[in-house]
Amino acid sequence: MNPLNEPFAAGGAGGGWDPVGIAVVGLGYWGPNLVRNLYESSAANVALVCDMRTESLERIGRRYPRVRRTTSFADVLADPEVEAVVVATPIGTHFALAKQALEAGKHVFVEKPLAASLAEGAELVRLAEERGRVLMPGHTFLYSPPVEMIRDLITSGELGDVYFVSTSRVNLGLHQSDASVVWDLGPHDFSILAYWLGQIPTYVTALSRGCVIPDTPDVAFINLEYGSGTIAHVEIAWLAPSKLRRTTIVGSRKMVVYDDTSIEPVRVFDAGVTLPDPETFGEYRLSYRTGDIVSPRVDVVEPLFLELNDFCQSIRTGTAPRSTPALGLDVLRTVEAAERSLANGGARTEVEGASVTLP
Amino acid sequence: MNPLNEPFAAGGAGGGWDPVGIAVVGLGYWGPNLVRNLYESSAANVALVCDMRTESLERIGRRYPRVRRTTSFADVLADPEVEAVVVATPIGTHFALAKQALEAGKHVFVEKPLAASLAEGAELVRLAEERGRVLMPGHTFLYSPPVEMIRDLITSGELGDVYFVSTSRVNLGLHQSDASVVWDLGPHDFSILAYWLGQIPTYVTALSRGCVIPDTPDVAFINLEYGSGTIAHVEIAWLAPSKLRRTTIVGSRKMVVYDDTSIEPVRVFDAGVTLPDPETFGEYRLSYRTGDIVSPRVDVVEPLFLELNDFCQSIRTGTAPRSTPALGLDVLRTVEAAERSLANGGARTEVEGASVTLP
Amino acid sequence: MNPLNEPFAAGGAGGGWDPVGIAVVGLGYWGPNLVRNLYESSAANVALVCDMRTESLERIGRRYPRVRRTTSFADVLADPEVEAVVVATPIGTHFALAKQALEAGKHVFVEKPLAASLAEGAELVRLAEERGRVLMPGHTFLYSPPVEMIRDLITSGELGDVYFVSTSRVNLGLHQSDASVVWDLGPHDFSILAYWLGQIPTYVTALSRGCVIPDTPDVAFINLEYGSGTIAHVEIAWLAPSKLRRTTIVGSRKMVVYDDTSIEPVRVFDAGVTLPDPETFGEYRLSYRTGDIVSPRVDVVEPLFLELNDFCQSIRTGTAPRSTPALGLDVLRTVEAAERSLANGGARTEVEGASVTLP
Amino acid sequence: MNPLNEPFAAGGAGGGWDPVGIAVVGLGYWGPNLVRNLYESSAANVALVCDMRTESLERIGRRYPRVRRTTSFADVLADPEVEAVVVATPIGTHFALAKQALEAGKHVFVEKPLAASLAEGAELVRLAEERGRVLMPGHTFLYSPPVEMIRDLITSGELGDVYFVSTSRVNLGLHQSDASVVWDLGPHDFSILAYWLGQIPTYVTALSRGCVIPDTPDVAFINLEYGSGTIAHVEIAWLAPSKLRRTTIVGSRKMVVYDDTSIEPVRVFDAGVTLPDPETFGEYRLSYRTGDIVSPRVDVVEPLFLELNDFCQSIRTGTAPRSTPALGLDVLRTVEAAERSLANGGARTEVEGASVTLP
Repeated sequence: MNPLNEPFAAGGAGGGWDPVGIAVVGLGYWGPNLVRNLYESSAANVALVCDMRTESLERIGRRYPRVRRTTSFADVLADPEVEAVVVATPIGTHFALAKQALEAGKHVFVEKPLAASLAEGAELVRLAEERGRVLMPGHTFLYSPPVEMIRDLITSGELGDVYFVSTSRVNLGLHQSDASVVWDLGPHDFSILAYWLGQIPTYVTALSRGCVIPDTPDVAFINLEYGSGTIAHVEIAWLAPSKLRRTTIVGSRKMVVYDDTSIEPVRVFDAGVTLPDPETFGEYRLSYRTGDIVSPRVDVVEPLFLELNDFCQSIRTGTAPRSTPALGLDVLRTVEAAERSLANGGARTEVEGASVTLP
Repeated sequence: MNPLNEPFAAGGAGGGWDPVGIAVVGLGYWGPNLVRNLYESSAANVALVCDMRTESLERIGRRYPRVRRTTSFADVLADPEVEAVVVATPIGTHFALAKQALEAGKHVFVEKPLAASLAEGAELVRLAEERGRVLMPGHTFLYSPPVEMIRDLITSGELGDVYFVSTSRVNLGLHQSDASVVWDLGPHDFSILAYWLGQIPTYVTALSRGCVIPDTPDVAFINLEYGSGTIAHVEIAWLAPSKLRRTTIVGSRKMVVYDDTSIEPVRVFDAGVTLPDPETFGEYRLSYRTGDIVSPRVDVVEPLFLELNDFCQSIRTGTAPRSTPALGLDVLRTVEAAERSLANGGARTEVEGASVTLP
Repeated sequence: MNPLNEPFAAGGAGGGWDPVGIAVVGLGYWGPNLVRNLYESSAANVALVCDMRTESLERIGRRYPRVRRTTSFADVLADPEVEAVVVATPIGTHFALAKQALEAGKHVFVEKPLAASLAEGAELVRLAEERGRVLMPGHTFLYSPPVEMIRDLITSGELGDVYFVSTSRVNLGLHQSDASVVWDLGPHDFSILAYWLGQIPTYVTALSRGCVIPDTPDVAFINLEYGSGTIAHVEIAWLAPSKLRRTTIVGSRKMVVYDDTSIEPVRVFDAGVTLPDPETFGEYRLSYRTGDIVSPRVDVVEPLFLELNDFCQSIRTGTAPRSTPALGLDVLRTVEAAERSLANGGARTEVEGASVTLP
Repeated sequence: MNPLNEPFAAGGAGGGWDPVGIAVVGLGYWGPNLVRNLYESSAANVALVCDMRTESLERIGRRYPRVRRTTSFADVLADPEVEAVVVATPIGTHFALAKQALEAGKHVFVEKPLAASLAEGAELVRLAEERGRVLMPGHTFLYSPPVEMIRDLITSGELGDVYFVSTSRVNLGLHQSDASVVWDLGPHDFSILAYWLGQIPTYVTALSRGCVIPDTPDVAFINLEYGSGTIAHVEIAWLAPSKLRRTTIVGSRKMVVYDDTSIEPVRVFDAGVTLPDPETFGEYRLSYRTGDIVSPRVDVVEPLFLELNDFCQSIRTGTAPRSTPALGLDVLRTVEAAERSLANGGARTEVEGASVTLP
């Protein structure tokens, strides 16, 4: 069992400290999942839920009759039981809600992306540091066991140099009214790549199209270049014949296919190319190696549960969460570079302040 | 059975005209497949095979003892039985060999790509017209039943507008010593896209890396923009954990997955998004439609057999082959634009003389 | 949406009658699923849950704090709010619990199989008729949209004569302490086959082995013969490298693969064999036909929800449920024949009272 | 590379002895494959081919113009260049042809099954011993690298005790005019099981149906019981929506899926059940173990090539071939038991002379 998981399972022993009083704001598509996981964790206590739509509140009420409900964000800010606020509203509202919560002395968890711009995100980070409060962006995939396993394969050197990564995250739906597919799905892949590679790209080149709603891109092809030489392609779309969550990582020693829809989400291929003696280099007598394929056993655990526990633990113990504010900003840098590339007709675009993110 | 196939099966009735006397030049990886298909067709007579490597000639000799063999291309040019020359040598030699053959009055089939540059290709086309000889580039996939079926789905309007195409053509091997993956695998996808869409891209943006041999790209991510609004992504690589030949075509009415490694190579998805009444447009209340999925029956026939018969038929009857010289030039235009994009650090690059190719 | 589903969704309009007051008895592996579906249906009201294990009761209590709980079955029988009892306890207790509930005037839903023997089952049926109460065996798969779709394909004649059926229902776990795999998994396939074919087998031949626990079969191969000429093979196991839920139905006109683990659970193959003119029969010049393959769109709905609503509807309206007591007895006849075959060293064994079940 | 393969590749060094002069008799569906593999092996010399149909001879002649052809079996027997005869005719003729060939002093390879009855097979074995000639049944799957790899997994103990085996070998076609599916496909699975388990079954129970041609079974479900406790199910059919070649082997320590249609033909699952301390046995607290899944690299080589080389090697060196006459007889024993079971209405039937076959 994942160590992040153990102490917090419902009814379990807990981490030795009191559950964190939490308000969940925004009960649309994703909010109920946050409520459910917090409800089942011994690390948290869902004190309050907040949404402007009474219908959404009632639906939660039927399932969790003991949880208090409100349509007013002011109630959230004023509630003494609420130590931390979980924000799961449309992207455009992230900044205003998180800012008010931090100013009210609350810890804040914001669903990805952290904010609607790098400038907004940086202001939130500054504010959280100033007030000594935890600010955590909800990059859930960092808590996915397959993603973590692949990070271990990379950082341990088992894959060798990462030559390139190619990823497809497509399915039919859900068009967002307030954001392009780049803002909606891009943060998933950008955060995973940052976590795996320990860096963000230096250049981004993007091509997109608003197929269904003009000016709202619903498909994008994004090429990324990293300082290390690694290149990557990210395909994201709300239009697709079938759901794909497939990432290929090609290393100099081994290769990996990560398919989040498969019961074998990680497959490690002992395959590659061997260059002969450099003296005979000119002859290009490469030999290809194809060995065993291994599907390692992967824990089955809900990443969101681990992520929310990490948030609570960070509040109680002061340790940094895996999904750091710095990573949240790096994701915003990548999204903004992709958007600038699109605005400039697909020009190759430098990422602002690209630098190594993680150790 | 495909109509191109019928009259030429080995021992079949034939097209009512004499078999075309053919020489196959180049017996490396692909040449033996050309010999085998020509040998089994009643439309052709393999008069001569030519390769500088006696070992390759001997291997063919063991299998086809009656076929004459030579190490000298001059023998090919001088042979009165040889009406047509099939060129399957490294790309850099296509121009010189095809030029000599045309000048010697032979019809010429050149494995893809037609030549190593647009200028070379254009010179060959000019020469063929001048001499009244058939010149045909070997874009085999145009003769693949799944590719043809998808062209029918597109041109009949069954898919609606083609929003975008995404394609992956990757596997482990075979690094070429004289060409990048863009010259080696790119022509397959560029010719298929030209055949399907009836146009070539106006802009190309490419990213590549020479992972194994520096300066010899073995992976490339290529974004394509078409005048019609269609966008496409082409991923090609000689490095991959497993073979992929997967193309997704997303149309406004239906979607298709073409997987050339599957026994169900074409799958048609009756899926899409419905926009509501334009007046309520601002509300984005899209509805998603997912209906039946159909794998239509596809003929099992070797595309190369059909292609070579089309070449012979073109020689005997004067009809244009499906794989026209004009399409061959359009493929070269696309490859060159991709190469220019790479040479310019991944800049978005205009395709020279982009224009509609096919009716 | 399935018509059985529509009026009962949580918060929906309901069927125009009061929700049925229900007690769920047995909160082991399956019981909580029954509670959850009843809780979300407007057709039912979970008045009481009952289990001897206080731990199980507490777990339900955390999730549904308003539901009353008891460790005493006598409380269930005495409770005036309880109109119907849902029994989800080990097989050996089905008879005693259902009998008491019927005698107390309750309607009864019993998880499959209806009882631990045909004699017990028949006694329950007699008692329910005598008391005028609904008795319904929980053959959930009869409410699975793919199963229903295949029944339509069969009864409409689209498949032609059903030549044979072959089915595998295997995975790793869950060994039952009180029953063999034949009693545990067999009823699923036997009920599906009865529903599809409208008959039960006339002969059963079985082979099994208790691999892990001697004398507790955890794998069985069961051959079935039907009066219509159809033959079937049922493979069931608690030991398997991966989960399989795959059934092949071969008809004289079309064939179907039903895979309950796939997102395309029903695939219809327009394939078969054509016999030539009977006069030339001796020559066996068969022609094979392989046409399109269609994956029809299948509703995504939880069968258990539909099944429990059918139970409530039967109580309120007096209509027979799809899963009739007669079908429940036929399943017991088949299980008992398989067990007799095993007890007789794998002898071919007649099914008691085999007769057409369904119209 | 498989050691059986190495010395015999076309043009290779050979085993240090002269190629065996061979006649191939029967050029129907399978015969041309035999000719092609013998033609490419340095261990053999195809001296003569024989078929009553001149059309079949001509087709071979076009491909192998140097090979002599005859319509008369007497020519085969009389030809001094022919040291060995390969029989690939309908089953009913195996005995007569093999007998004459042995009596004429030839070595004989007979496509599976060895003969049309155990009595015939035994007579051939007796005759071969008497004359000191090699007699080899063509059980090709014994030379398939996946089959060999699984045998190693079993005999090395890596799988533990083999609890059970379940196998499906079905596809659409090819109905045989002179044999049931039991005689046609059964020998494949019966020979593989004999090779893996080192024994033949003691009891067989079969159910079949002639769906298309009455009295010619084209589907059969066959249950097998072995003295070791292992049980097996064999499903074979000429009628199926899609080709299946899937075998599951469940051992006490590991499990294997062998899929001959997959590019990963062998998959080893580190999965199983752990029984607790025997003292607490009554509680059945089993724990399930699911670990890594490994697809070991498997040689890609044509089994038929290895098999024919083994035949030649046996002739030249006197070593027993892997596919022994004894195994051929054991397969006939199993087929005959299945046929007797069918003739007796599906009764459980003892296998004649069941005994351990292989070390």
